Amino acid sequence: MGNYRIAVLPGDGIGQEVTAGAVEVLKAVGVRFGHEFTFEYGWIGGAAIDEAGTPLPEETLRLCRESDAVLLGAVGGPKWDGNPPHLRPEKGLLAIRKQLDLYANLRPVVCYDCLASASPLKPDLVQGVDFVIVRELTGGIYFGQPSGRVVENGEEKAVDTLLYKKEEIERIVRMAFTLARGRKKKVTSVDKANVLSSSRLWREVAEEVAEQFPDVELEHMLVDNAAMQLIRAPKQFDVIVTENMFGDILSDEASMLSGSLGMLPSASLSASGPSLYEPVHGSAPDIAGMNKANPIAAILSAAMMLRLSFGLTAEAEAVEHAVRQALDQGLRTADLAPSGGRIVSTNEMVEEIKTAV
Amino acid sequence: MGNYRIAVLPGDGIGQEVTAGAVEVLKAVGVRFGHEFTFEYGWIGGAAIDEAGTPLPEETLRLCRESDAVLLGAVGGPKWDGNPPHLRPEKGLLAIRKQLDLYANLRPVVCYDCLASASPLKPDLVQGVDFVIVRELTGGIYFGQPSGRVVENGEEKAVDTLLYKKEEIERIVRMAFTLARGRKKKVTSVDKANVLSSSRLWREVAEEVAEQFPDVELEHMLVDNAAMQLIRAPKQFDVIVTENMFGDILSDEASMLSGSLGMLPSASLSASGPSLYEPVHGSAPDIAGMNKANPIAAILSAAMMLRLSFGLTAEAEAVEHAVRQALDQGLRTADLAPSGGRIVSTNEMVEEIKTAV
Ligand SMILES: CC(C)[C@H](C(=O)O)[C@@H](O)C(=O)O
Ligand SMILES: CC(C)[C@H](C(=O)O)[C@@H](O)C(=O)O
Repeated sequence: MGNYRIAVLPGDGIGQEVTAGAVEVLKAVGVRFGHEFTFEYGWIGGAAIDEAGTPLPEETLRLCRESDAVLLGAVGGPKWDGNPPHLRPEKGLLAIRKQLDLYANLRPVVCYDCLASASPLKPDLVQGVDFVIVRELTGGIYFGQPSGRVVENGEEKAVDTLLYKKEEIERIVRMAFTLARGRKKKVTSVDKANVLSSSRLWREVAEEVAEQFPDVELEHMLVDNAAMQLIRAPKQFDVIVTENMFGDILSDEASMLSGSLGMLPSASLSASGPSLYEPVHGSAPDIAGMNKANPIAAILSAAMMLRLSFGLTAEAEAVEHAVRQALDQGLRTADLAPSGGRIVSTNEMVEEIKTAV
Repeated sequence: MGNYRIAVLPGDGIGQEVTAGAVEVLKAVGVRFGHEFTFEYGWIGGAAIDEAGTPLPEETLRLCRESDAVLLGAVGGPKWDGNPPHLRPEKGLLAIRKQLDLYANLRPVVCYDCLASASPLKPDLVQGVDFVIVRELTGGIYFGQPSGRVVENGEEKAVDTLLYKKEEIERIVRMAFTLARGRKKKVTSVDKANVLSSSRLWREVAEEVAEQFPDVELEHMLVDNAAMQLIRAPKQFDVIVTENMFGDILSDEASMLSGSLGMLPSASLSASGPSLYEPVHGSAPDIAGMNKANPIAAILSAAMMLRLSFGLTAEAEAVEHAVRQALDQGLRTADLAPSGGRIVSTNEMVEEIKTAV
């Protein structure tokens, strides 16, 4: 019988519809297991720019800090594409990650048997895929300074800085090893140590941390090879740990293993306060408001919240089980069409899942 | 009846075997079309470290500068993995790119019909794939300064710098548009403009260059999305242009569309001197010296040399045709085994191709 305050930041586009679905499922969990979830709403991204003139209003940040966890939808859309950099929806996302110290982004990639045929890959390659990408989320080239435009001797240049402190690497690698311990006990650390100084530090630190986990195997893989191996033989992976930009690229690529980006949840864990949960997919302006979006990534993100922020394992499993059941029964949102089954709307999918919780 | 000086840098591992194969095919072209090719050999990578104490000896560089084109194998191997950064084989590759001003790396990705089933992707998705990745090769985070380790207030940090000058972007984007003009007239410029300053400059410059090519369509794509789209629907691409690191990652990923990394050639075009041709694959120490490596990437790289450095179109086509014929006849090196056919050695494949030239 717990009492949990959840900050809900739907954001833009389909972020609205999919978080609404996840909230409904959480409510059903509350009823079934006797918890009280309080949902308080805040603006972020384009919606926040329109309402408050900034992609991450102070008010939203305060709301998050006073909550036990944050559920986020997605940000961005063509409406704000022409805005100057500091008034872009994505700035809200980057700012909340930094402000809440959300250093560890966990992106599980699981291929449900019944969706194997929805993947562009051959079914036997993806059936059984089950790994987690652990992406560093508050460092690297996303936040390094200097970053900007310079004119030198009449030459126009632009610069970005990839910077990592040893402790930043340590904490994320330790997170990966801790996770691997509860899984198949293998960590693949992805870097570009043959070119980047930061990757050489990364590799050294990974070796150091590995000594504290003698029961877990550590393997290093270059990022270009990893991009290939993810497609060639994805079942070789258990826990992949990597820096911010590589994690961004590899996790979107890996989404194709699960049949659709619409299936991938994520948790962004904080070092110091509430953690944040959001689908990996974006705001998909092309189908926003059409009741077509796949709500499963958001719903599975809510399940991660139950497990990782609230310690509610049975509740998380109930949600995951309900999702699996809906899929097994043949329900498919449009993005999952290639795997056959019956095409349903966002609402129908949510309805089915919440009833099965 | 031309006279051409070719610098051959086999490098390490299977680099030796595959360049030997490409040289044999070039010799056959010489005989058939009446050209004189002179081959002069130089050290690079680990072999050069062993022989001359440095991954790119001055002598090798001089040889290249005095040649009409350079044929390179691959560099690297476990023997040199423990070396300090400036004595790594890869440094030789990076140095030769910079020294010869090889700014434009062209990596064609073609799926031969008879190899479609060797790809991890579903055959109908890859059959007909035919695009080129144009990777900027002498700028970006590979060469930006500062790059190194710092200790500040007792904190250990490592930094790398992603830097692009406007002209560097201009010339590579122009190359992409020029190529697209002779193809399907579509350029996809890949960046991370929602996060990186350098990508925002990249996007601006791409727009500017596009104005000079009104007959070619320009589309921008974020790198994370590109990593996904390459798998989801690879036939949408014609020419992809991107910065150094993104190009590294995306081209290795894209290799899976052609069935094997062993199929992918590349050209690295110089702004000022001889250009360089090399397979995209690495030195594959695990199969080095075993007469198992796929020589096709090296042979197709030689074909690119004939076309792009020497303007010998018919000769290039003869080589490409011979490759296609060997594959159509069912010859397969081990890496291509999943597509059926008869497994042959490196030598047998070379023999077949050179006889068919
Ligand atoms: C929207 C963008 C800034 C963001 C990122 O690059 O981190 C997104 O791609 C993600 O993966 O969450
Ligand atoms: C060996 C390495 C330095 C090189 C690179 O990163 O450019 C390789 O991966 C390539 O793609 O040619």
